[in-house]
Amino acid sequence: MTITFITGGAKSGKSRHALELADGHRRKVFIATAEPIDEEMAHRIERHRTERDPSYVTVEEPYRLAHALRELPTDTEVVVIDCLTVWLGNLMHRHGNAPPYLEVDAFIEALHWVTCPVIIVSNELGLGIVPENELARQFRDLAGSLNQQIARLAHQVVLVVSGIPMTIKDTQP
Amino acid sequence: MTITFITGGAKSGKSRHALELADGHRRKVFIATAEPIDEEMAHRIERHRTERDPSYVTVEEPYRLAHALRELPTDTEVVVIDCLTVWLGNLMHRHGNAPPYLEVDAFIEALHWVTCPVIIVSNELGLGIVPENELARQFRDLAGSLNQQIARLAHQVVLVVSGIPMTIKDTQP
Amino acid sequence: MTITFITGGAKSGKSRHALELADGHRRKVFIATAEPIDEEMAHRIERHRTERDPSYVTVEEPYRLAHALRELPTDTEVVVIDCLTVWLGNLMHRHGNAPPYLEVDAFIEALHWVTCPVIIVSNELGLGIVPENELARQFRDLAGSLNQQIARLAHQVVLVVSGIPMTIKDTQP
Repeated sequence: MTITFITGGAKSGKSRHALELADGHRRKVFIATAEPIDEEMAHRIERHRTERDPSYVTVEEPYRLAHALRELPTDTEVVVIDCLTVWLGNLMHRHGNAPPYLEVDAFIEALHWVTCPVIIVSNELGLGIVPENELARQFRDLAGSLNQQIARLAHQVVLVVSGIPMTIKDTQP
Repeated sequence: MTITFITGGAKSGKSRHALELADGHRRKVFIATAEPIDEEMAHRIERHRTERDPSYVTVEEPYRLAHALRELPTDTEVVVIDCLTVWLGNLMHRHGNAPPYLEVDAFIEALHWVTCPVIIVSNELGLGIVPENELARQFRDLAGSLNQQIARLAHQVVLVVSGIPMTIKDTQP
Repeated sequence: MTITFITGGAKSGKSRHALELADGHRRKVFIATAEPIDEEMAHRIERHRTERDPSYVTVEEPYRLAHALRELPTDTEVVVIDCLTVWLGNLMHRHGNAPPYLEVDAFIEALHWVTCPVIIVSNELGLGIVPENELARQFRDLAGSLNQQIARLAHQVVLVVSGIPMTIKDTQP
């Protein structure tokens, strides 16, 4: 099992790169963490869905990523999780700013049991000016910590800038 | 003809790097997209102008980049466009958030006809916290898409961080 | 004497990487620029302190970095400065937005006289949307300029993303 962690800014081409990496596999699962809570979000989700190869099985799971991983069909050849930052936002919204979140520990545990390649998309949030909003500051700290945690586990880490993927960690055999 | 796309954060040294790349050429054209709409902007434009080698011919073109490229003197040896993000802001301000913008298609078309090296400066806007302002979110999405589009066309892509250029794509012969 | 400049986003693992680089040295000095002006800041400072190896001598110096460098014990084997951006914020708060600041010139001068390795941590602030707040725009410009200035002096520049260090400049013998 190989974990690839793909990170970058908004609209930098992260999801597209994740889909390109998954190309060539047949039985593909896409785990979407976004919830269509408003029209703008519904529109983004729909646009992403139409950009995907119809050969994907899409699983919508805003909270229990560990559960989604454990329920993967046994013949799954690759799974794409998009994205970690939205998922963290969902957890923070549900549980308040009171980490650690059980779902995060369970997800990391579950990652060790997946037998197919896992491609995880995330966002870099910390390279702008310090937000005035305290909750935003807390969220970007949590997101940064989670990114570090998953990037440490990952065999490959890719930073995407203006659509160009840069491999910044590669420990694959 | 070679297209070099230079991107990075505010005050990261992108423009300076563009000018360094253009050094050594003689007949240089600088296409400035910023408009002096307020004192702060006028000050920035003036500061950038004084930093430039006086051997540049400066063309101010906030909207019609395609036109500016087509009007280049035939003996131009290099052209620097600074910057794409300000230009996109001008288009969004004029036409509203209703892409695609004709000027973008015309620019991409015109790029194919330029016979000298073109150096294009842009900004990364998507690596901070999600903006609360909806227009800001739309703008950063448009800017991200435009960056991807131009970086795909470019032969070289350079990310500048703290003044240090990192070549992240290089398909030059 | 070697200067290493480490930059990146909030919670990207910059400080951790600085401490890892300093590992193996014995007589270590940590110069902390943050002031515990409110509870949130006090909490951050305390958390950072507990993450540090107790073998560090910690010097709190929010303004006069040059002075702190000149006062280093002569047997110091490595010094970590964390961080430049907070220091710049302190200077801007004290002197107003009226650079150049004498402390910056003095710091750069003092760097030339340090005989042990110096590891300097800073932040990238310029990769988000343009801030609406004018002071925030001025601050990110100043921070970008300072980063460029120090990265130019540095022998090594490291960009940390999701905890992964990328060496983007290396002129060490």
